[in-house]
Amino acid sequence: MTDTPSRPDELARHSAKMAKKKAARDKIMATKSGEKGLIIVHTGKGKGKSTAAFGMIFRCIAHGFPCAVVQFIKGGMETGERNLITTRFSDLCQFHTMGEGFTWETQDKARDIEMAQAAWEKAKGLILDPRNRMVLLDEVNIALRYDYLDTAEVVAFLKDHKPAMTHVVLTGRNAPEALSEAADLVTEMELVKHPFREQGIKAQIGVEW
Amino acid sequence: MTDTPSRPDELARHSAKMAKKKAARDKIMATKSGEKGLIIVHTGKGKGKSTAAFGMIFRCIAHGFPCAVVQFIKGGMETGERNLITTRFSDLCQFHTMGEGFTWETQDKARDIEMAQAAWEKAKGLILDPRNRMVLLDEVNIALRYDYLDTAEVVAFLKDHKPAMTHVVLTGRNAPEALSEAADLVTEMELVKHPFREQGIKAQIGVEW
Repeated sequence: MTDTPSRPDELARHSAKMAKKKAARDKIMATKSGEKGLIIVHTGKGKGKSTAAFGMIFRCIAHGFPCAVVQFIKGGMETGERNLITTRFSDLCQFHTMGEGFTWETQDKARDIEMAQAAWEKAKGLILDPRNRMVLLDEVNIALRYDYLDTAEVVAFLKDHKPAMTHVVLTGRNAPEALSEAADLVTEMELVKHPFREQGIKAQIGVEW
Repeated sequence: MTDTPSRPDELARHSAKMAKKKAARDKIMATKSGEKGLIIVHTGKGKGKSTAAFGMIFRCIAHGFPCAVVQFIKGGMETGERNLITTRFSDLCQFHTMGEGFTWETQDKARDIEMAQAAWEKAKGLILDPRNRMVLLDEVNIALRYDYLDTAEVVAFLKDHKPAMTHVVLTGRNAPEALSEAADLVTEMELVKHPFREQGIKAQIGVEW
């Protein structure tokens, strides 16, 4: 329980302060009227990059918007979100798993490059289809980071060919600077504390996959 | 296209390097064997706190795990995730919207405190029910920040009464220090760039709600 006295004069002051805050916010909000398809980047070492991206995909599904996912790296692993989307929402969301796992799992660079290029070709087609309101390129930043894809080519494509109202979400650590510069919305998920590191807790069902 | 020559010797070096990396990772992974229900905090000024939390809720739903959501603040707004969960997955996920909007919208502190307390009572019941594998307390950090709920009481409850295998996710800016200390996993979503701030783009369907 909070032990704030909550006396009538204090409540009135709070109310007046909040009314002022609301007026200021409403004024700001009135200037925010634009709409556009965004280039969205989730990067950083923390948890939540792909998770939040899938959260947005589920929002699109909820609104009945066609959308698509291309997984660049995580192909080797069965995940809850993939199962849910492919079994229940395949009418709205195309799901393409083009990766075979992290690069230290495959140990075959030529093959990794081939897979990344194929995934990017698929991604371009999905982005060019204006019916898709959102296209998620999951872990694409890893492919950019290892030069399996050319960052300049990806950025140029997004700038020149992305339909105006399509959102494209790019996830993964170490997003290249040129990509962040081209993006509209960049969030860095910062790892403050992680039980994997500090408590020897493994990746758990429902939390990580 | 990447213009790396990818000569056979370079590929062999890559393969050897990745094999070494995999061996090192496998060794580390073998030590990460623990499982526990986590106290998970998403905080920071960036986007993705609630989005990633709902991403985990959808993971739980995907795996057929009972779970629950209590929304402390965002009651006033219709959201895609709420519609999707309440219309399609109400058998697995209880959804309780206990807030009436942000505190500058309601302008009534006594009422806000009452609502926050009622939401917390509901949350305690859901956490104590061991069938729930995950309970999301969405925007609870705002209620803690404004002292609508007592942080010490919330932390003590989570430490003493949370069933061992239940994950509890707490979202919102300005997570109190005592909560982060008690948590197993803390991620700070850092705002690097946001089109609301820089381009006058409003909150958009599919992206923010």
